[in-house]
Amino acid sequence: MNTENLISEINRKKSFLCIGLDVDLDKIPQFLLEEADPIFSFNKAIIDATHQYAVAYKPNTAFYEAYGLKGWRSLEKTINYLNQKYPEIFTIADAKRGDIGNTSSRYAKAFFEDLGFDSVTVAPYMGKDSVEPFLAFENRHTILLALTSNEGAFDFQTKNMEGEEFYKSVLKISKTWKNSKNLMYVIGATKAEYLADVRKIIPDHFLLVPGVGAQGGNLKEVCKYGMNDNIGLLVNSSRGIIYASQNDDFAQAAAKEAKNMQLEMKVIMNGIH
Amino acid sequence: MNTENLISEINRKKSFLCIGLDVDLDKIPQFLLEEADPIFSFNKAIIDATHQYAVAYKPNTAFYEAYGLKGWRSLEKTINYLNQKYPEIFTIADAKRGDIGNTSSRYAKAFFEDLGFDSVTVAPYMGKDSVEPFLAFENRHTILLALTSNEGAFDFQTKNMEGEEFYKSVLKISKTWKNSKNLMYVIGATKAEYLADVRKIIPDHFLLVPGVGAQGGNLKEVCKYGMNDNIGLLVNSSRGIIYASQNDDFAQAAAKEAKNMQLEMKVIMNGIH
Repeated sequence: MNTENLISEINRKKSFLCIGLDVDLDKIPQFLLEEADPIFSFNKAIIDATHQYAVAYKPNTAFYEAYGLKGWRSLEKTINYLNQKYPEIFTIADAKRGDIGNTSSRYAKAFFEDLGFDSVTVAPYMGKDSVEPFLAFENRHTILLALTSNEGAFDFQTKNMEGEEFYKSVLKISKTWKNSKNLMYVIGATKAEYLADVRKIIPDHFLLVPGVGAQGGNLKEVCKYGMNDNIGLLVNSSRGIIYASQNDDFAQAAAKEAKNMQLEMKVIMNGIH
Repeated sequence: MNTENLISEINRKKSFLCIGLDVDLDKIPQFLLEEADPIFSFNKAIIDATHQYAVAYKPNTAFYEAYGLKGWRSLEKTINYLNQKYPEIFTIADAKRGDIGNTSSRYAKAFFEDLGFDSVTVAPYMGKDSVEPFLAFENRHTILLALTSNEGAFDFQTKNMEGEEFYKSVLKISKTWKNSKNLMYVIGATKAEYLADVRKIIPDHFLLVPGVGAQGGNLKEVCKYGMNDNIGLLVNSSRGIIYASQNDDFAQAAAKEAKNMQLEMKVIMNGIH
């Protein structure tokens, strides 16, 4: 999916909600464990119930790899289902990959071609030649970790690197890489005030903002500092939506939470247009 | 496998060679493509032919994920084969993972428990809480990226962070994390002179050194600057060994290359003891 389609979906749905599909078999309704593929059954029900409120879904690969081959198959079925039934949805493989050039090419092939995701999250530690193989794919997006939402973000990302915070170097340097128009960035919502600084460096790129909800971020603050003329935000919520209930009504409960977030987003979007 | 067993295997075999199993179907002997699982058939032949010269094998997950479910199955079969037939071998999942705490726990479970690797490579960008879930596993090792062997290493890793090169911060700070005794570090061989600085900070930890061979590093230089009293090195070679021949004799050709490296290592080890 290209950026223009994503922007038009955001405006059509009045939503920039991304739902994280981080499926833990210990947390889903236990009657689903009798299904042939509980993870996919759960995802399918969540997607069907919430798709009108969300513009993106983001399975985190760790939750699938933890179940081995079966988990990988559930991931394949989930992305296939999204691509076939809801092609207007932007899909994110939250994989945080990155390796030397020829190896990153294999990851890019895995996520963009074989699985068919619109985007994948990538770690910047190994620099330009670890990221550019992802950027080479037309109409696919590479979502670079910049400022993450966890406590460990302060170990390195906010440290001073040659005169500025390290994550700002990541933003500035990555802008110079080939096909950098295909970049988006992960910017954690637990530090909304940082978003103003981020927007000075990358006014136009989309930001994927985790940490609204379970990790404590505030939607209004995020929008105040992070929004641009094209909205330019995908705000992710995982546990707060998908685990809203562990009972028969889990999909409806998830829909209710997603709708609440979408309504908040609609108010904000109407306020600025 | 614990560190003592690894050290004793290194001394027994007079080798600190790690063989990278980065299998590309375009590069293996084409007659193998008729096999039911060409990747596993290739790996099995390579392992059987080279195991007496190597102490570790390192499949890079990118090469397996690039083939989807089939690739993941080949990875499972490869690690199972190693664990069953050669339990004395140290196994490394070169996966370069890392995520927020509860998510990193899932990756640790995937690689240490489900697949049964002795170690996994992890990226440091997200800091302490993204790495400690891996370190919590007893007798498993977390191999943290510090100074990688690619050109992009100079984009961030060697930049000055609060008074010293960033990769040195990674070494110093990670030493303070819980169960840091379970850490090893990736230090690229293309910059052997850096190893002396590395050893001032982490004299005791094992270093996984890629880039000897195809990427141009020099074994003697690496040993001169990087070896400690327990050897403390795993030197990786991938393409130079596994793709030594594309003909019927590919396994013997790989064995010859592995043996050559092992003999070089033996000379060096005998020279210091």
